[in-house]
Amino acid sequence: MMIAVDAVGGDHFPENPVSGAVLAVEENKDLEILLVGPEEIVQEELSKHSFDKAKIHILHAPEIIGMDESPSSAVKSKKSSSITIGITAHKQGECAAFVSAGNTGALLAASTFILGKLEGVIRPTIAATYPTIKGISLLIDAGANLELKPEMYLQFAKMGTIFSREIFGKENPTIGQLNVGEEPEKGTEVNKQAHILLSQLPNYVGNIEGKDILFGKTDIFLADGFTGNIVLKFGESIPDVLKYMLARTMKQEGIGPDMQKKIYNILEISLKTFNYEHVGGVPFLGVDGTSLVGHGGSSPVAIKNMIINASQCVEHQVNKKIVASLNN
Amino acid sequence: MMIAVDAVGGDHFPENPVSGAVLAVEENKDLEILLVGPEEIVQEELSKHSFDKAKIHILHAPEIIGMDESPSSAVKSKKSSSITIGITAHKQGECAAFVSAGNTGALLAASTFILGKLEGVIRPTIAATYPTIKGISLLIDAGANLELKPEMYLQFAKMGTIFSREIFGKENPTIGQLNVGEEPEKGTEVNKQAHILLSQLPNYVGNIEGKDILFGKTDIFLADGFTGNIVLKFGESIPDVLKYMLARTMKQEGIGPDMQKKIYNILEISLKTFNYEHVGGVPFLGVDGTSLVGHGGSSPVAIKNMIINASQCVEHQVNKKIVASLNN
Repeated sequence: MMIAVDAVGGDHFPENPVSGAVLAVEENKDLEILLVGPEEIVQEELSKHSFDKAKIHILHAPEIIGMDESPSSAVKSKKSSSITIGITAHKQGECAAFVSAGNTGALLAASTFILGKLEGVIRPTIAATYPTIKGISLLIDAGANLELKPEMYLQFAKMGTIFSREIFGKENPTIGQLNVGEEPEKGTEVNKQAHILLSQLPNYVGNIEGKDILFGKTDIFLADGFTGNIVLKFGESIPDVLKYMLARTMKQEGIGPDMQKKIYNILEISLKTFNYEHVGGVPFLGVDGTSLVGHGGSSPVAIKNMIINASQCVEHQVNKKIVASLNN
Repeated sequence: MMIAVDAVGGDHFPENPVSGAVLAVEENKDLEILLVGPEEIVQEELSKHSFDKAKIHILHAPEIIGMDESPSSAVKSKKSSSITIGITAHKQGECAAFVSAGNTGALLAASTFILGKLEGVIRPTIAATYPTIKGISLLIDAGANLELKPEMYLQFAKMGTIFSREIFGKENPTIGQLNVGEEPEKGTEVNKQAHILLSQLPNYVGNIEGKDILFGKTDIFLADGFTGNIVLKFGESIPDVLKYMLARTMKQEGIGPDMQKKIYNILEISLKTFNYEHVGGVPFLGVDGTSLVGHGGSSPVAIKNMIINASQCVEHQVNKKIVASLNN
């Protein structure tokens, strides 16, 4: 199976995408990688590694979309970007999936535009993995659709259920709608309608609140993309905030270096699930293809995991199962 | 100055409201307190304290609105509740303000209905104090108005500015609009319009993101009540989540009891600002009166601080300044 990897996406390219590709072909002998990016840059980075030459190939794409570029205009103006060329190659069947740690908005725009939507899908969505004290939950929508119709909550719930089941191995992932209270009558008109629609799903547990997120009350958190994006970035800030607060306190209290080291160590272990770099990527659910996005800070291991996730989406026929679920 | 206190509001009544009232008249000799609630219950609790009998009075209100009761139906059906009778006494000029740690929705409904709105106010709002690494910020709206019009962001910004200035002593409190990105074109149509309106305020710094909250990027966070409520409850869950995670790690790692105690102590000091019990209450901004709500778990000190805050709102003529600001 051939997986295309954006060699110039994320905060640490080409090092991390190329290292991740090398790790992936070492871990899974059935995989081949198509590194998409400016040939010279990719070639030079690859030359630093030793790997099976038959397994990693280069697809030349001279342009790079930056992390902070406006998504729609970048996709329109840079027709030869790694993102556009990689996703087009996937559309044309040259690879089974495309993965990138690059500009999420540009990836969503290119994926939706080039690959199109799966049958019956109102709007594709971005899911995000969300660390909780129970492990990893899935937050949908993480920012693709700022405002939702009630029917979109239902579709996102169904798509998230299939992804959680097939890729995270959760047979019956529980679903909660993020809301201002647990009662059915809480929230906006859209929330109330969504609650009624969601209630037909056996794995929907009802409305959940902000205090339930970090405790991992459900495996899937449903929210509009506005709320979801704010909750996602808020959560990502917690480890740094904690380290800052503890460092300040330890300085104030005159804690010695040995004790400080012990405390940081315990914090580090506690926050392990919060290290998004090691989670891998998540797919744009609802597009007619397999296109995954990872965090900009993705480490080589995160890129490798994203590649493995992509291959599993293909093997497990996630899209076929989504179409069956939506049109059922 | 007479301040009415809901003697049967919150999770710990009548103990904490009564203790808070006693603390308040000790701290500020110019204050008198009107404890509102079932006379027998309040009298019995008061008898446990020694205090200046000329300073604390009782206003009989036989009914109690529970923390989980549906706000609008509770206010409608319980005409003799401490909330309704207390706010009515304020409306009639028998006291300068009303404070409660009770059912927030019922307090908002009764305050808006009985006191009415200040001149020019579209909708009253609930502000919440929000702990950050820099101290206390103000989150508006914390759940009163789930969906906002752009003009409401501007009004909330102006009201929050006056409250921060007069009560928190921040001469020029900075304001940020919670959004999915910093650029002016980010967010929904409402966010974009709000950003334009807010830009006329000298203390508006622009859009801020979820990652900026705990770092205290601005003194005032503006959000619709849906997002605000979720962000508020999320933040309140952080101390418990942390304690749970650290306890689990220390158990796994076999950390001894002395070391555990030291670590908990450092965490406790670090999270001091997160202890909402000691913050006191916040007013319903925009109502034609002074009505403050505190956290259900308010300690006696929190109730006392809420009473002091209420007296300062009156002394500093917060409402007069709000009307001038809105109609300017």
